[in-house]
This record gives sequence, structure tokens and C-alpha cells, in this order.
Amino acid sequence: MADERAEDRRETRAQRLARFQPASGMATPRFSGLASFMRLPMLAPAEAAGAGRAEIGLIGIPFDGTTTGRPGARLGPRAVREASTGTRALNHATGVAPYALAACADLGDVPVNPVDAAETDRRIEAFYRPLAQAGIVPLTVGGDHFVTYPVLRALGAARPLGLIHIDAHSDTDDAQYDGSRLTHGTPFRRAVEAGVLDPRRCIQIGLRGSMDAADERDWALAQGMRLLAMEEVCARGLPEVAAEARAVAGDGPTYLSFDIDALDPAFAPGTGTPEIGGFTTREALHLLRGLRSLDLVGADVVEVAPSLDPAGITALAGAGIAFEILCLLAEGVAARQPAA
Amino acid sequence: MADERAEDRRETRAQRLARFQPASGMATPRFSGLASFMRLPMLAPAEAAGAGRAEIGLIGIPFDGTTTGRPGARLGPRAVREASTGTRALNHATGVAPYALAACADLGDVPVNPVDAAETDRRIEAFYRPLAQAGIVPLTVGGDHFVTYPVLRALGAARPLGLIHIDAHSDTDDAQYDGSRLTHGTPFRRAVEAGVLDPRRCIQIGLRGSMDAADERDWALAQGMRLLAMEEVCARGLPEVAAEARAVAGDGPTYLSFDIDALDPAFAPGTGTPEIGGFTTREALHLLRGLRSLDLVGADVVEVAPSLDPAGITALAGAGIAFEILCLLAEGVAARQPAA
Amino acid sequence: MADERAEDRRETRAQRLARFQPASGMATPRFSGLASFMRLPMLAPAEAAGAGRAEIGLIGIPFDGTTTGRPGARLGPRAVREASTGTRALNHATGVAPYALAACADLGDVPVNPVDAAETDRRIEAFYRPLAQAGIVPLTVGGDHFVTYPVLRALGAARPLGLIHIDAHSDTDDAQYDGSRLTHGTPFRRAVEAGVLDPRRCIQIGLRGSMDAADERDWALAQGMRLLAMEEVCARGLPEVAAEARAVAGDGPTYLSFDIDALDPAFAPGTGTPEIGGFTTREALHLLRGLRSLDLVGADVVEVAPSLDPAGITALAGAGIAFEILCLLAEGVAARQPAA
Amino acid sequence: MADERAEDRRETRAQRLARFQPASGMATPRFSGLASFMRLPMLAPAEAAGAGRAEIGLIGIPFDGTTTGRPGARLGPRAVREASTGTRALNHATGVAPYALAACADLGDVPVNPVDAAETDRRIEAFYRPLAQAGIVPLTVGGDHFVTYPVLRALGAARPLGLIHIDAHSDTDDAQYDGSRLTHGTPFRRAVEAGVLDPRRCIQIGLRGSMDAADERDWALAQGMRLLAMEEVCARGLPEVAAEARAVAGDGPTYLSFDIDALDPAFAPGTGTPEIGGFTTREALHLLRGLRSLDLVGADVVEVAPSLDPAGITALAGAGIAFEILCLLAEGVAARQPAA
Amino acid sequence: MADERAEDRRETRAQRLARFQPASGMATPRFSGLASFMRLPMLAPAEAAGAGRAEIGLIGIPFDGTTTGRPGARLGPRAVREASTGTRALNHATGVAPYALAACADLGDVPVNPVDAAETDRRIEAFYRPLAQAGIVPLTVGGDHFVTYPVLRALGAARPLGLIHIDAHSDTDDAQYDGSRLTHGTPFRRAVEAGVLDPRRCIQIGLRGSMDAADERDWALAQGMRLLAMEEVCARGLPEVAAEARAVAGDGPTYLSFDIDALDPAFAPGTGTPEIGGFTTREALHLLRGLRSLDLVGADVVEVAPSLDPAGITALAGAGIAFEILCLLAEGVAARQPAA
Amino acid sequence: MADERAEDRRETRAQRLARFQPASGMATPRFSGLASFMRLPMLAPAEAAGAGRAEIGLIGIPFDGTTTGRPGARLGPRAVREASTGTRALNHATGVAPYALAACADLGDVPVNPVDAAETDRRIEAFYRPLAQAGIVPLTVGGDHFVTYPVLRALGAARPLGLIHIDAHSDTDDAQYDGSRLTHGTPFRRAVEAGVLDPRRCIQIGLRGSMDAADERDWALAQGMRLLAMEEVCARGLPEVAAEARAVAGDGPTYLSFDIDALDPAFAPGTGTPEIGGFTTREALHLLRGLRSLDLVGADVVEVAPSLDPAGITALAGAGIAFEILCLLAEGVAARQPAA
Repeated sequence: MADERAEDRRETRAQRLARFQPASGMATPRFSGLASFMRLPMLAPAEAAGAGRAEIGLIGIPFDGTTTGRPGARLGPRAVREASTGTRALNHATGVAPYALAACADLGDVPVNPVDAAETDRRIEAFYRPLAQAGIVPLTVGGDHFVTYPVLRALGAARPLGLIHIDAHSDTDDAQYDGSRLTHGTPFRRAVEAGVLDPRRCIQIGLRGSMDAADERDWALAQGMRLLAMEEVCARGLPEVAAEARAVAGDGPTYLSFDIDALDPAFAPGTGTPEIGGFTTREALHLLRGLRSLDLVGADVVEVAPSLDPAGITALAGAGIAFEILCLLAEGVAARQPAA
Repeated sequence: MADERAEDRRETRAQRLARFQPASGMATPRFSGLASFMRLPMLAPAEAAGAGRAEIGLIGIPFDGTTTGRPGARLGPRAVREASTGTRALNHATGVAPYALAACADLGDVPVNPVDAAETDRRIEAFYRPLAQAGIVPLTVGGDHFVTYPVLRALGAARPLGLIHIDAHSDTDDAQYDGSRLTHGTPFRRAVEAGVLDPRRCIQIGLRGSMDAADERDWALAQGMRLLAMEEVCARGLPEVAAEARAVAGDGPTYLSFDIDALDPAFAPGTGTPEIGGFTTREALHLLRGLRSLDLVGADVVEVAPSLDPAGITALAGAGIAFEILCLLAEGVAARQPAA
Repeated sequence: MADERAEDRRETRAQRLARFQPASGMATPRFSGLASFMRLPMLAPAEAAGAGRAEIGLIGIPFDGTTTGRPGARLGPRAVREASTGTRALNHATGVAPYALAACADLGDVPVNPVDAAETDRRIEAFYRPLAQAGIVPLTVGGDHFVTYPVLRALGAARPLGLIHIDAHSDTDDAQYDGSRLTHGTPFRRAVEAGVLDPRRCIQIGLRGSMDAADERDWALAQGMRLLAMEEVCARGLPEVAAEARAVAGDGPTYLSFDIDALDPAFAPGTGTPEIGGFTTREALHLLRGLRSLDLVGADVVEVAPSLDPAGITALAGAGIAFEILCLLAEGVAARQPAA
Repeated sequence: MADERAEDRRETRAQRLARFQPASGMATPRFSGLASFMRLPMLAPAEAAGAGRAEIGLIGIPFDGTTTGRPGARLGPRAVREASTGTRALNHATGVAPYALAACADLGDVPVNPVDAAETDRRIEAFYRPLAQAGIVPLTVGGDHFVTYPVLRALGAARPLGLIHIDAHSDTDDAQYDGSRLTHGTPFRRAVEAGVLDPRRCIQIGLRGSMDAADERDWALAQGMRLLAMEEVCARGLPEVAAEARAVAGDGPTYLSFDIDALDPAFAPGTGTPEIGGFTTREALHLLRGLRSLDLVGADVVEVAPSLDPAGITALAGAGIAFEILCLLAEGVAARQPAA
Repeated sequence: MADERAEDRRETRAQRLARFQPASGMATPRFSGLASFMRLPMLAPAEAAGAGRAEIGLIGIPFDGTTTGRPGARLGPRAVREASTGTRALNHATGVAPYALAACADLGDVPVNPVDAAETDRRIEAFYRPLAQAGIVPLTVGGDHFVTYPVLRALGAARPLGLIHIDAHSDTDDAQYDGSRLTHGTPFRRAVEAGVLDPRRCIQIGLRGSMDAADERDWALAQGMRLLAMEEVCARGLPEVAAEARAVAGDGPTYLSFDIDALDPAFAPGTGTPEIGGFTTREALHLLRGLRSLDLVGADVVEVAPSLDPAGITALAGAGIAFEILCLLAEGVAARQPAA
Repeated sequence: MADERAEDRRETRAQRLARFQPASGMATPRFSGLASFMRLPMLAPAEAAGAGRAEIGLIGIPFDGTTTGRPGARLGPRAVREASTGTRALNHATGVAPYALAACADLGDVPVNPVDAAETDRRIEAFYRPLAQAGIVPLTVGGDHFVTYPVLRALGAARPLGLIHIDAHSDTDDAQYDGSRLTHGTPFRRAVEAGVLDPRRCIQIGLRGSMDAADERDWALAQGMRLLAMEEVCARGLPEVAAEARAVAGDGPTYLSFDIDALDPAFAPGTGTPEIGGFTTREALHLLRGLRSLDLVGADVVEVAPSLDPAGITALAGAGIAFEILCLLAEGVAARQPAA
């Protein structure tokens, strides 16, 4: 092992990147082989962090024990992995070639306990802490939206983060069912309370659907979060919305969280709490491409529930969104490299 | 019973409204309990009308015996009820809280005869007449579009109604198959002939798809109805279309009929006669929100066929459209209340 | 209320039964109206128990927070209710007419907390205790198999029960994932430990599928439970198996628990942990009909997960099994009536 | 035309049969080309009957307007045609090569009126009368079970027929919904009343499922019909059942009607009124092969509803059953040929 | 035959058109009868070409042996035929009545060899050559996109064609998997190399999705083809894109190829290589309507894979797109008629 | 590497087996992590063979380019891997614990060329030859049945093998479509011709379905192969059939090939050429358990086509069958170990 590490240190960046290329669909069919994220090499987390070999880690969190609607997001990571094997190496729209910019690997899944949310909460944070310390940028696939909370604790431990949150729901409830405070409707309230999010650097985009009460949004507004309902997004247009998102998040370290139910149910039926009137995938890609200059320290795509997705288009959308986000993250990694 | 009625009369409006609240998703899960429309209380129609307890009645008409394409809309009311349990109390876009404005209840289904259209036609009218007389505003979930005809006879008995009709098809055929005049392609022609619709106050929005012949539209135009093809809707924009709809319907009593096939098949695959190139749900909501000042005396959402809807998004769209319409109806009920 | 109770006491048994008849499919279509279990009248639990009006209560427990495989059984009660509207009044094979033998009603769903298993465990027991005290025989539709544990605590509080348990899995694990003891793999171990099951009067039928280890079955055998693997069931034949089940359970109060995964995945694909090589529905009905003389104090059908059931045959099987069990329960209720 | 007829008369039987061969799957793929029944040549009914060119006619009746449960059997003929393209020329079990025994053709669909049962009833009879007069043996694919009634009137006009009826339901109701007498639950009662069935030569096999009341079966028994519940079928075994069916029908002209819901829902989920505990396809084939010596004058396979059949196995079963029946019919045609 | 030809020559154009009308949905239900394209008459190709009876031939090519992703487009022709029975005679938007302008017929399927691409390539060209020579305009339904290559060889044999190519992918790869040059990713490169396409008159519209490498697009650009990525389409608007397409193709003979994956997966999930961010059907129709004045000599709709299309909306879109293209082709046929 | 090999040689068998255990479902959820076969460790084939580390290799061959019916078996390996994560360590019926008997690993997929059958044929043989030389027993998951032919060439190169072939079809056609000799209908004819199968030691079990002609079975019989139609299997019973299979194969090296279409479509709808009247999974398991003493040198499970399998039960059955076969293979490996 010591030798390997030494060898690793001697490796040039170009050599390292060459080791982390996805299997090409021109050489072997995309439907062949085990389905890792984007057909990338698989690394155990310890390997990834231990020697700093990977710069971006794709991670699954197959947990949905905090879902209050229809469950199934625990099956999301496998379905998104499978769909992601159809993504290729070059972003046709932005020209970004993420695997030429950053060493990316599939780090597997967090070892969740499906029947114990509190224990899983601890395990997720414990999984991400060493990655954060090693400077590995995580791109997470959920799982329900609760999983973002422990990830934020790991990534925001040093200083509060900004947030770009694309979702139909604000997820800033206080509690449900006589006091349950850890649900997929509460992660961002908990994260602000925990001090790992700076609410004045948080923006939520795409909110819609009927509400139980105005409380969740009132609280968020009171913290200084910026909330953009779908109607406002439509009225102002995506370029302006993206510009505002960049302005809200500013230059500081920022997290990007994409709930697949931000998309319209026609584009993403496979999710527990769909709301009509949402984004098309084209709009979502457009919006994400407007976020290129942010200092992103992590991101996630959550709430893909394959059992509710008979045509598989939700996982497909999740994989496509994840690829677009990966391009953003890879640009950030490359930007942080010391000049050669 | 006499005592109860007396009690009912003593009840303040606020007390009445408090009795007609849907079960909250913050207290019990939305997937629990029997699925009534919007998780509202259930009332027998006689109860609803007898003492004027409900102001808006949600009613299912599970009949599709007049369908000329793929059947299955008879299963629509149960599927929309199920999907409607995901709607909540507050319209995020308009701020309307319908259950604070009007006493709403699920009045069950009309007792149709699935193998006898003429008998069902009579039963529907008989079901709605006392409701109309009691001033209860019905929001109906079909069933195929034929069911609108007997409902219109009940509601328009006193004076002809205006119509906002959102649909891919004009449904103004004269007859099919050697003279069948009661089909889901003929209700609006029959209603004009019966004098319960005022054709000059009728507008059809979203028409598209190939046609057997121009006859059905020529007839409608000759009556003075306004027909807006999908292409014209796109060219002019939704605000202008909504304004024209309000102008056509004017100040008189008006009925709103929403055929789910107005939506594009990507958004509503579960319907018997889908036509590509239709509305998104976002556009449909936008259009409906442009109709807020009308004097609506009833409305329906029809043609949801769950067997053709593997991901359930058609029933979801039907429920969301129904909620948006309910907000319109509730505003109307509130507006008609005497000042306190 | 007092008057009503008096009226209730004056009611003859025939009159009472007449009030608890399901809606007939010869009068109104089976797809019409809200879907209560078997189209039976709905009663609030307090009503049911308060005046002893119902003798058998059909109850949903929409909880799957203890599922370790694919989730979705929380959606089981609604799906089984919907499918159960196709059942009719007379058992064609046994000639039993359950609604002529016992007053049956749909008592709604237990108010579960989907993100808190311990709290739900308490709420279930609290829901069933007064029913048990009022002598109402519950027929429960789950939910995952964990829900049987608190039901057994309520029903077996006075004395340990016998058990007929039809399932692919023994569900007698001790714990999973580093110590989680409340999962859908542990209810019968917990119930024996709690003293509410008498293991020597317990039989498990249909066990199969590969195992993590022999521990769960070794423990059960050590307690004196009788375990019949699927292969033994086939070798010996259903009449002999039914006879042994009756012998094991004996004359004492007995609970019947039917996990839908006892059926082969061809017959019940919609369940979280399917195992090939299971019962056909014909065999299951045959087996249940062999249990007619037992003293059944309650029963359940669990683990129906509709999202995994595209053709709806799992809910259909669940409803059919529930009807067959209802016939057993109704015979028991009738047998316990004092001679007229 | 006259010349053609003369040519036709000069044609040897071998030449005729050669003209009526299905397209071979060894030459062109089974998924190619328009889907006629069994990839047989298509003939207009007039052609078929006019010159006596076809001996067996496969006919669709896409009508389900008399369905009291879930609709969709109107889509059955197309789905069964599609599935039937997978059948081949030689019955592997009996060795029968039907297209070597009889000239078979697809005669298209009866021109039904989907919104008018009485009119459709007349059209069906009118379609079959000339075929019956020309001695063409019809193999019909429904449509709901009502369609058998007008077919029986056409085929049994000269003398009452015997009946082998394989079904979960007796379909001998008198009326539903306050007097509707033409439904898919009444055809055999109507046919006996019309004198086109001889009830003492009728047998029903596979009856099961709960019943609204015993009336329908009591009436049938009172007429002298033989009813075999599924349980009795299982207890006695298929060879004995087939023998009894042959004995009941006797030597006279007999009709064979196969309702796809005779099969268990695991084998045929795509039908409007499925009943658990039914036949496997293997049993159904076995049973049909036990009917080889009957004098069959027509047959049908009904109630395939493709919208309820996501995996397509119901249409597949329908096609396989239809092929097996076709072998029976072809043997009969061959047996009636004059010795060469 | 000679007589028939003479008779054919005597036939007026109006008489001929009258013989090629689709079956009307006002007379017989659209779900009845064998499913030919648009319910048109079926002709054997030899009949169609031999006497010049049809002017537009709708043809299936059920081949997907060159698919590199998920297969299933071999089942496309039957599914599109089925869905196309819902199209009617009059284009509501353009007013074109195609069957009044051109004699259209279903010419069946090319007899492909599903396991031999080279042989199928030859058979396709051989099927289309006589049609091309007879001046019949083919509208093809695939099959995977490879099938366009042999069709282009047949149609472009006399002179190179222009191309309007609407697709998510450029399909101008050189080879895959160590040298396979006949795949569904290469047809347009092969066609340019074969000299049957004039690259300077080719335009590709809707390109998107990640790429393996820039090679395929670089090659196309180097040939002088015009490539419009989806983003450019959105930025410039459909009217401008259509204008450019007309300008690129110019006045010369032009082929129109529509890959169903040009549509977004929400609108066309049933295809082997879906890419998020695509066209809506409304946009696609709008784009096609902008191409009315071109000299179209043939067209196709490819890559519909029904097994991946649980709600059937992909085949529905394919049929609707095919109808819109048919209107374009029919206008062209009519325009080429000598003045009366 | 040299060191590792030395280390490997020093490893005891117990230590080796300990390294090849599947991840336990009691520690991490079965739905978590990448889906390797049975959650086993993954090894590159070179690693597996190079040092003899694995004794049984599970291998996917995602190829269906030789399918003549509905395609999709190329997607089989991933779907079976996913379903196989539900299998556990201990066979409940036979008591076999395969991972305690043999070192098992997932060796990934053969690098097929989806558009070139001849090339893929060569690659498959090349992949298996070194495994065969290293004594690794392969358990293959297809892919269509053609893939068995090159596997047999690799395994039978040294001496002809016996064959237990469980299938609805004989797959001994000579050619299809004018001479195509490499299809999924021909592998066993080719293998006998190539001398790698000894036809007198071959038995085919479960044959059924209509046939194009008797040729394929006549040829097989003429070679001395034993053919058991489904009807004969039913008549004689599974114990006798298993005994005959063992007798036919004898003591020599034998291959076991399981085509998933041996199962009835109710149990395995997801396959390209389903035939009604097949095995239940219970029967299939029973049959396989009757083959325990054979000298199996390899096995496969083929023709799982997930796109045709909406409920996922075909992949589930494939995984369960594969586990049962793995137990047979592991017993064989253990039996060949030298006594300690």
C-alpha cells in the first residue's frame, strides 16, 4: 500500500485523469457490465479519500425512511446508476468534458439502516466527513430529501454554505405528525438551525403545489432565504432566475440540491410527491447551465422513486441532471487546480 | 333530525366551514384513510342539499358507456379521488384557501347504469336537479364527456348558461354510427339544441387533432360559439386567451368544462382519445387562473381513464386541475355571501 | 346518543345485520362510490366499539416504515379496499354468506406516523385495545408485517394466542443492521417474547427462499413453533397441512396472519420481498377453507405493495384472501352467538 | 365473378388449402406485416361466404358496451390478432396441423356500434347468419361475453345447440340495474330463453368467485344445465371433467365458449372481472384437448381487455387458446369432408 | 391483369382518390378491423407500383438489428399502425385533406431478415427501387435509423438528395465496436459517402445529449452539413429554423427523416436512446408545418420501440408525426399533377 | 503480482472462501450498492483465471442480435444481477450453502458487439476458453439462446458434453430466413455438428408450443437426443423426469441450459417467445433439485428480456433459478476437491 501511494504521488494529473475515464460506448455497449455511475471506475470510499485519488465522488444514499408520501426513493441510486450508463463524455451544449477536468469515481452507497432514521443520519455524516476533509466533492444521488441534511452537516461543518435548491417544495417544515422533526419535509430548516446553511445565501427555485399552511414558507422568508415560485420563474425567465441564484449564493462555498420533483410529473412521474406545473428537463438543463461560475462544494439529485416510473424516464432525467451538475462540479475542480 | 336542522341553522358560517375541512396531511398521512375528494367529509346528497349544509359538492359520475374510442373513464372518479388526497388547503399561486371560503363536501357518485346511456342520462339530471335548486355548486369528475349534457340540463334549466370549454375536441358532432346522437362527441350540440347553453356565450379552447370532417366545427361556428384552436392559443398567448374567454362568457352564469385530453398526452396519457400537441399542466393552471372573476355555477373534469395511465399522472393532473377549479368556485361562493 | 344506544339495544340481530350489508353490484356498479372494504358501511372506531354495533371490523394499517426490502405496503389498504369492491356476498365454494352471519364494517385506518415506528407501534396497540375489549374481531390489511406485533399485543393481552401464519418467511429474526429489533422480519419473535403468542400453538406454512442464516428458524423451532416449508406442504398435500394447522392451534383463541408473499410472485408480484415457488391463489383458498373450525379472534393480510403491481393482481389476491378469511371470522362470530 | 366461381369449383381441396396457409415465421419474421389472426389471409365476409372459399372464419367482435365491470374488451380482437402471429402451423401436443385440414381465413371485425348494444346485437346476428348458411365455422374473438348471444342466435337458428362453457361466471343472470337484460352477465339465460341453446346439453366449467346471490346458478340448474365449480373440477380431475363435458354435449351440434377469466388472474390479468383461483393455461389446454370428438359448429374466446394487461400475457393466452380451439374446429371440418 | 390496367387508365383521378380513402371513424369504430396505416387500403407493393395505383405508399421496416442501445424498434411498424387508426382525414391546423390530394395506401412491410443486417440492407433497397421508379412517394415507419440508408440509396440513385433530419443524434458516426460500419449511428455518413445525399443540402435539427466525442459532428460539418443543436433551435425559434431548413434543402428533391428521439422522453419514452431536453410534440408539428413548400420525395419516422412505451404515447406521437408528414407529401403529389 | 500469487497459494481454502462471500442483507440493505450477481465480489476475468482464485464465475452475455422474435435479452444480465441481490446464502430446501462450498465471483460481461453476431460468437468463445482451461465453472446469464453455442465450444473443446436443456423450444433449427444459420433457434444443432455436444447424452425438457414444422424435432431425435414435451413431463411427474435426465447425461461432463421461456408466461412474461402451458417456478426448482449428482461443467440462464417484464418477476425467476443452479455447481466443485 505504501508503494502504491508513492506511485500515486508520482502520477501526473493527466495520468490520474486517464485512470478515471468512463468506459466508452464506442468500445463496449452501454448496456453491458455492472452499472456504476456514468460507467466510471468504482472505488471504496477509503481508497478515494485516503490517497486523494478521486476529486469528485458519486455516491448513492438509498434511504427513504423519512418519506411522508409514497416511498421508493431508496431504490433511486441503482436506477440512476443504470440510466447514467447512457451518458457520454462530452457536454454537447457547454462543451465541457468533465472527465478531462476532474478525476471522478463511483464511491458506492452509504451503508444506511432502512428502519432507523436517526442512525442513518449519523452514518451519512460519518461517511461524508472524511471526504470533505480530503477535499473530495460529492455528487449524491438519493434517497429522499432528508439525506441532504447530514450531508450538509459534513460539508458545512467549517463554515455555513450557500444553497441553490431546485424543488417543488420548500422542505422547511418544522415537524409533522405530532412532532417528528426528521422527515424529508424538514432538512433545510434543520440545516439552518444547525448553522451549516447561511439562509441569506439560500435560494429555492420552482416552488409550487398547494400547501398545508403558509408556515413553512413564512419561516424560510423570515430567515432571509429567497423563494421563487414556479410562476415567478416563468414570468421572469430562466436567464434572470439563474442570475439571481448566482447573486444570492455569491462567491462563498455553495451546495446545489436538485429534487427531481422540481420537474413536471410528465418528465418525472417516478417520485413520491409529484406536483403538476413543473419544469421541463430542457428548462432544468438551461437553468443549471446558468450556474457555471459558482463555488460548488457538493450537490445532490434526490427523490427518484423507480417503482413509480414505469417508462424509466425519471431515472433518465435524474441521470441527465446529474451529468449536467457533474460538469459544473468538474469545472469548479479544474478552476481550483494550481496553474501548471 | 329536526333538532339537527335547528342546530344547523344556529351554526355560524365560521362554524360550518370548520366542519368541512379536509383531513390535514400534517396530522395523518395523505395515503391513509378512505380516499374522498380532497380528503373532504362525505355527505349523502340528500343531507347536502336538504339542509344546505354544503356549498360546493364534489361528485363522481363513473360512466363511459358513450365513449367511441378507448373506454375506461368510468374508473375516473375513484382514481381522481385517490390522487386528490395529495392536494392541500392553500393555493400557493393565488393564495386562495378554498375551504376557508366555502363549505365543500364529497357527495359520492351518481348511481349510473353502465349499460344504459339513456337511463343514466335521466339519473344524472335527477341527481343534479335538487342540488341546483339548493344552490349547491357541483364540481363533477367524469366519466366520459357525455355526462356534461345532463348536468347542463339540470343547471341550465332556469336560463341558458355560458360555457368555458377546454378540450382537444369540439364535441359538437351531430351523430355517429348511423344515427347515435348520445355519445361523448355530441354533448355540446345537444345542450345548445336543448336551450341550456347560450352558444354566443360559449368558447372552446385548445381544439386540435385531425378531424373526420369540418362539420362539427362549422356547426358550432354557425351557432355563434367561439372556437380557439391550439395553434391560435399558442400564437396569442394565455393571458389574451383568458381575457377573451371572460369576455365571451360575460357576467351571466357560466359552466366550466375541462376535458383532460386538452392536456398533451405526455401530461395526460390516460384518456380515450389523446391528441398530441396539447396543453402542459402549467399552461392549463395558468389559463384557469385567468378565469377568476366569472360567475361559475358548476364545473367538471372528465375523460380520465386510469387503465391507460400506468404512472398515474393523468389522475394526478385531473386532481390538480380540479383543485384549481375548486378555488375558482370557492371564490365565487364567497363572493355571493351576504356581507356580515 | 343515549337514545341511540337504547335504540341499538332494542334492535334485533336481524335488523342489525340488515344495516351492515355491502352495497350490491346488481344495484349500483362495483366501480362506483368510495371504495370501502367490501363496499361495507364505514364506521368511526369509537362508534363501532362504543355501542358494540359492529362485530367484525375491517381496518387498514398503512405503515411500511419497518420494511427492509422494497417499500410500498403503506399503500396497501387503499389498493385492497379498491380491489375488494369486486367481492360479493356469497362464498361460492363454502356457501358461507358472511354478512348474514356477522355485522361487518370498515373502521378506517389506524392513524400511523410514517416516519416513526415506535410511535406507530403504540398507536396501533391503542387503536386495537378498545376493539378487543368490545369483542370486535379485527380483520386488518397492512402495511408491512411488523404491524401484526402491536395488534397481537392488543388481542393477546389477556392470554397468549395461537397462530396460523402463512408466509414465505418466518419473520422471527432477532435484529437487523446492528440491532434494529422492530422490523418486518421480527414481529413473531417479539410477540413470543412479549408473551402474547404461545409458541407451541403457532404454525408457519409456506416457508421458502434462501436464508441469510438458519438462526431465525432455529429459534422458532426451539420455542416449539411448527414450521412447514413449501416443499413439505407440497409433499404432504393441503388437506393434511390444514389438519395439522388446526391441531397445532387447538381450541384456544387463535390469530391468522397471511403475508401476501406466501403466494408465488406470478400471483402476487406486488410485494417487497417476493420468493419464487410459492402458493397459487387456488391453493391458498383451499388451505384457508381447511381452517373453518378454529376460534379465530383476529386476522390480517399484509405486505401488499401496489406500486410493484402493475396489473393489480396482488391487491386482487389480497382482497380475495381477505374475503375468504372474513367468511371464517363470520362463522366464528355466528357460532359464539347465544342460541335464540 | 362468375368466372372466379367456376375457377373456384375446379380447384381441388389441396389447392384450396394451399391458398389459405398462414405466412411462415421461417420466411418472414412474425412481428412483420399487418397482424391478421394467425397470419392468415384476410377475406371480406362476402367473399368468404359467397363462394364457400373459407371453411373456418376467424372474426373479431370489438364490443364491450354491455360490460358491468372494468371495460376494455372492445380492444381484444386487435390484441389477440397481434399475439396470434406467434402461433405456428403444427400443434405439438396433438399433432394436428389445422391449416392442412381446413381452409381458414381472417374475416375481419363485425361493424359494431360501440354506444348501442341493441343495434350491435342485430348487426352481429346479421353478420353471422350468411356464414352459418354457407357452412362456415366461426371462431370469434370478443369483445365482452354478451356477443355470444347474437352469435348463438345465428348458429342455433335451425336447432338448439349444446354448449361447452368455460368461465369463472355462469353469465345466467336475469337482469341488472333495475332491469337491464342485455349485459355480459346474461347471454346464456337469453340464449336458452330464445331456444337456441338446449340447456340439458349445456355444461359450465370453472365457476368460482363470490356471488351476489345464488339465483343465477339456481336458474341454470333448474333448466337442466350442468355446472362445475372450480373446486369440483380440481377434485375430479381434468380427464373426468372433459369426459363429462363430452357426455353432456353429446353428438349434436355444439358451441364452445371460452371466457378468458376462466384462467387465473396470474395467467390472464387483462380482463374486466378477474377471479382468483382459476385455471392455469396448461390446464385449459389439457381440458380443450379432451374435447376432440365433439361436433363443434362454432366457438369463441372473449373478455380479453388489453389495457389491463401490461405484460400482454392475457392476449397471448387468448391467442394460444384460440389456436387450440382452431385445431378442434379444423378436425371437425376435416371429419365432415366426403371421402375422396 | 391487362384488362385491369386498362380499366385503371380509364379511371379519373377523382375515382382513383375515392378508392383510396381511409375507413371513417364515424361509420365504424377506430378500434375495429385490422390496423393498417391510417385505416388505408392495403396493397401489395407490386400492385401499388405495377399499375401506378398508389401515389404515396406507407411502408413498415420492422428491423432493429443495427441498434446499439436498447432494442425494440422492430416492433415499431405494428404499434404505429395501431396508433395511426386514430388519425382522421382533415388536418385541423393547415386544412390539408391528404386523401383528397393523393392516392395513399399501406404497402405492408419490407421482408427483413432480423439477424442479418447486410441482407436486410439489400432487401430494403430492392423493395424501394421499383417504387421509386414508379414515382411512388414512400413514407416509411421504422425500425431503427439504419433503415434510412438503403431507402436513400433507392430514392437517391438518380441524383443526390437534400435532407431535413430531425433527431437528437447526428447519426454520422464512422464505425463502432472495432469497425462495425452499418449501425443506426452511421446511416447519414454512409449515405453521403455513397453519393445519394448532397451534404450541402442537409440539415440536422434538434441535436443534443452528451457525446462520445466530437468526431461525428466534426465530420458532418466538414462535409458542409448544417447542424442545429437543440439549444440553438430554442434560441432562434421554430419559424426561423424552418426557414433555414427550407433554404438549406432548396428546390431540389429532398428527404425528410424524423427520429422519434428528437422528441423529449416525456413525449416519447419508447425509444432506444432517449435524450432529455427535446422537442414537445407541439413544437415538432409546428416545425413540420414550416416545411410545406419543399420537394419531398420520401420521408420516414423511425426508432419507435413499443416495449419501452407503457402508455403508448410514443407510437401515438409517431402516428401523429407521420400524419403531419403525410400532409406534406400529399401536397407535393398534388402540386406535381398536370393541370386538369 | 508474483508476490500476490505466492500469497494466494499460501491461502487456505477456508481463507479463500471467506474472501468470496456475498454482502449480507443483515448488515447492509439488499437494495444498496452496485448490483453484482448475488452481491458477490467482482473480479476481472484475467484475475479470476490467472491465479485460479475463483472456482465458479458468474458471467453476463448481453447479446440478443440473433433473436428472431421480440428482442431485449441483451438487457438480461443487468436485470438478473439486480434481482439476484435478493438471494441469500443458504438454500432453504436442500440445505446447500454454496459460498461455503466454492469460491464464487462476478466476472462481469463478455464484451459483445451488438450488431455483429459472428464477431460476438468469436469473442464469447475467446472469453470462456481461458476460464475453461483454468477449471473455472461458468454460470452464464444471457442474452438470447444463441450465446450457449460459443460457450459450449469453449467448454466442450476437449470432449463432447452431455446436456440438460430445459426450454419450451428445441432450438435445433437448421436455418431461418433463407439460410441464416446463427440464430437463437439453432445453437444446439450447431453444437452437435461442431462435435461439442454428444447428442446421445442430451435431453430437452419442457418442449411445447406450436411448431413451424416437425423438422427441428425430427433432426434432434435422429441424432439420438431425448425430447420431453411438457405434456409428457406432466404425465410422468418431475421425479421420474429428473431421474431420466440424470440417466441420459450419465457420469460424463454435462452442461445445463435453462431458457427462461421454459417457465409459463405467468411466471416469466419477460421473454421474447413465450409459450403458454409451461413450468411454474416451483416445478422448475423441484426439477433442478433432482439433478444434484451430475458432473456439471457449466450452466446458463438465458432469454430474460426485462423490457417485457413490467413487474420484474422474470428477472426474479431468473435470479432464483440461477441461485438454485449455483447450488448444484457449488456441490460439484466441492465434490471435486481433494480430501483435506
